[in-house]
Amino acid sequence: MNEGKFADRVKYLAPSPIRKMMAIAKELVAEGKTVYELNIGQPDIQCIPEFARAINKKASTGQINYAPYIGEKYLRETFARYLNHYFDRRRVSHLVVDTENVLVTVGASHALSNTFLAICDPGDEILVIEPFFSPYIGFLAVSGGVLKSVPTRAEDGFALPSDEEIQKHITPKTKAILFNSPNNPSGKIFSKEEVERLARIALKNDLFIIGDEVYREMILGETEAFSLLQVEFSDEDENEKFKNSMIVVDSSSKSFSLCGVRIGFVVSKPGLLEKIALVNAHTVACVSDLLQYGVAGAYDAILSQPEFLENLRNTYRERLDATMEAIDEFLPNVVAPRPAGAFYVMIKFPEIDDANEYCHFMLEKFNLGGETVAATPAHAFYRDPELGKNEIRVALVVPPDKMRKSIRIMAEALKAYKIFKGNQAKPALW
Amino acid sequence: MNEGKFADRVKYLAPSPIRKMMAIAKELVAEGKTVYELNIGQPDIQCIPEFARAINKKASTGQINYAPYIGEKYLRETFARYLNHYFDRRRVSHLVVDTENVLVTVGASHALSNTFLAICDPGDEILVIEPFFSPYIGFLAVSGGVLKSVPTRAEDGFALPSDEEIQKHITPKTKAILFNSPNNPSGKIFSKEEVERLARIALKNDLFIIGDEVYREMILGETEAFSLLQVEFSDEDENEKFKNSMIVVDSSSKSFSLCGVRIGFVVSKPGLLEKIALVNAHTVACVSDLLQYGVAGAYDAILSQPEFLENLRNTYRERLDATMEAIDEFLPNVVAPRPAGAFYVMIKFPEIDDANEYCHFMLEKFNLGGETVAATPAHAFYRDPELGKNEIRVALVVPPDKMRKSIRIMAEALKAYKIFKGNQAKPALW
Repeated sequence: MNEGKFADRVKYLAPSPIRKMMAIAKELVAEGKTVYELNIGQPDIQCIPEFARAINKKASTGQINYAPYIGEKYLRETFARYLNHYFDRRRVSHLVVDTENVLVTVGASHALSNTFLAICDPGDEILVIEPFFSPYIGFLAVSGGVLKSVPTRAEDGFALPSDEEIQKHITPKTKAILFNSPNNPSGKIFSKEEVERLARIALKNDLFIIGDEVYREMILGETEAFSLLQVEFSDEDENEKFKNSMIVVDSSSKSFSLCGVRIGFVVSKPGLLEKIALVNAHTVACVSDLLQYGVAGAYDAILSQPEFLENLRNTYRERLDATMEAIDEFLPNVVAPRPAGAFYVMIKFPEIDDANEYCHFMLEKFNLGGETVAATPAHAFYRDPELGKNEIRVALVVPPDKMRKSIRIMAEALKAYKIFKGNQAKPALW
Repeated sequence: MNEGKFADRVKYLAPSPIRKMMAIAKELVAEGKTVYELNIGQPDIQCIPEFARAINKKASTGQINYAPYIGEKYLRETFARYLNHYFDRRRVSHLVVDTENVLVTVGASHALSNTFLAICDPGDEILVIEPFFSPYIGFLAVSGGVLKSVPTRAEDGFALPSDEEIQKHITPKTKAILFNSPNNPSGKIFSKEEVERLARIALKNDLFIIGDEVYREMILGETEAFSLLQVEFSDEDENEKFKNSMIVVDSSSKSFSLCGVRIGFVVSKPGLLEKIALVNAHTVACVSDLLQYGVAGAYDAILSQPEFLENLRNTYRERLDATMEAIDEFLPNVVAPRPAGAFYVMIKFPEIDDANEYCHFMLEKFNLGGETVAATPAHAFYRDPELGKNEIRVALVVPPDKMRKSIRIMAEALKAYKIFKGNQAKPALW
């Protein structure tokens, strides 16, 4: 095959390392191994039953029609209502979201790739706060854009650096600042002060600001995430300019355990939204009407049963507690800051050099009574190749006892891995 | 809003004229007008019930997981089997399609936009046979590519011009030849000789060749469409080169009345397919597992009930017969070639200059006993702005009696339109 026949962008696209690990884990499961799949943010919790009820009702009509490219009005209305209720229940001031502010996409991935295609010409840059969700690099590469990063460190609680430090990363090619709060993989929640600072830097440099807020409901402590929709500048002109540059991305995947349904959202001012919607129209024509109907059913249900999401938080908090306790007990030498949101724990192993090799060893060459763990090596969450090399990310996607068991397996695998590494250095006997 | 902040490609994206007409029709229906919506290829026929059965089964599990970015193996297997059976039942030789040759996408639109993103850098050209499905222009614009066209004419039965004539349209920027058979909007089926000629021209110029075969099952006469998968060169090297450049696009939308489900396919050699799959991964992450399960159920069902698609053909043939009879009776002055495939009729009105104005007049300013017709002005199906100006496209998406009624309404609307145009020329009385 003649590689020269393909578009330049294809060179920068590679299967996500998260997805690679998933493929290996699935194969091992098929072979009979028990694998705790902590390598992907795929919740195991049952979706609210109203989703299936709505889907069944719509599918039974026997005919599913094209939807408007911006999304079905009923879902856009319902999602806008969900967002407004979210803020109103917490008694915080916020931009009121109307139907016309909502675009429906094929998951948050597509919300982001549409946004990047709408704002980036080849060579344009998006500035992301690091560590970040690694597939951003490829989503952006489709438009020809390049991801640049502002580093933050576990040792500083992932605190945002000074304005001056951030400003150094902005070039004439920068089109937007992107941040994810609560953050995958770090679990950091950006403070009000940090979000406002990012918004002001974007404003000053005439950039878009993109908030990936898919983990909004996944709060593991007492503090809610501060949304871009809560930012308000006292100067009216500044506020108007901010509203014209603000883009929020959301998804039904995590809150409802519907990752494989693929319904996401972009929230912004209508003029800006229409540009992103046109990319939506010219990549997928429209989003499945059947799925939109089902997801509207799910949001409807949580609006009348807000305890669903409260229970969800408690479920993840119990898992996190069990995980942190098990880390203290079985992995005393690691560094693992307690996450404030999302549903991942980042674990740094000072005793090893190559977390990628350790993860593959654990998954493919190790078991404890037929069981092992799939975890994600964290180097891909950083742009700097020197960072994250001895870190791994585990997702809180199994019940507390299994989280505890998984951490124990990881500890045993670590001992075995060290012996394996020692043996590798010796001459082979056969 | 600062237009300069957006990517160049956005300038070339506009809502499809088909979609604009749909929005107006929906509003009028909401206001109580009866509208025969012949403006969009949205079949009214019930889907095979196994689709809803499979969907219900999967949705009821309460948890829908991420799928592999290339698509679920079960659907890729089933679709490959469907394609092989299609050819085998007709006893024609063909490339045997295996699971590894199939990529699952969000409808044929996404199959095409992924393909264009995989092969086109900004400024690259795709050569399409005209008239063509107008959204191709925007799908291609997302990659920065430009659509160029080889004209064919209704008067010549849309026959392909000579090799020399086609060759004139090929430039150093050309990346692929694209054709749609059966064709939307013309209903033309490209002959074996024509498909082989296009394949040979692609081969000679080192181009990809893309066959949009979404109307494969929609055959209105006796002749099946000749697929790219049936092309075979006697020279082994040529044949190998052809297989490395051949891309077939398909969809479940039309055959199963599942336009709003959004499941499409790319069929090609694995190396080439992987490049397109990487774009799939970096635009939507993966395709909904729930929908893949449902659509696999639909394909499974027609494999054991091939009469489903035979009945479908008969349904459309009856509608076409009623339509052609009504055109003869009510619209004696138009030119309307009988289509060989797909489910549209193109009608040329020698008496009018502006079919777009006539279509809008009929929809918005005319009714016959509270009823009217939404039809698509055909100018958008041509690149040349002079072509198609007095043509419209109607879709065979209502039963025979309603197709007949629609043609009668179109004839009455034509009379009223001519009076309206005459009155427009007179001075206004108030």
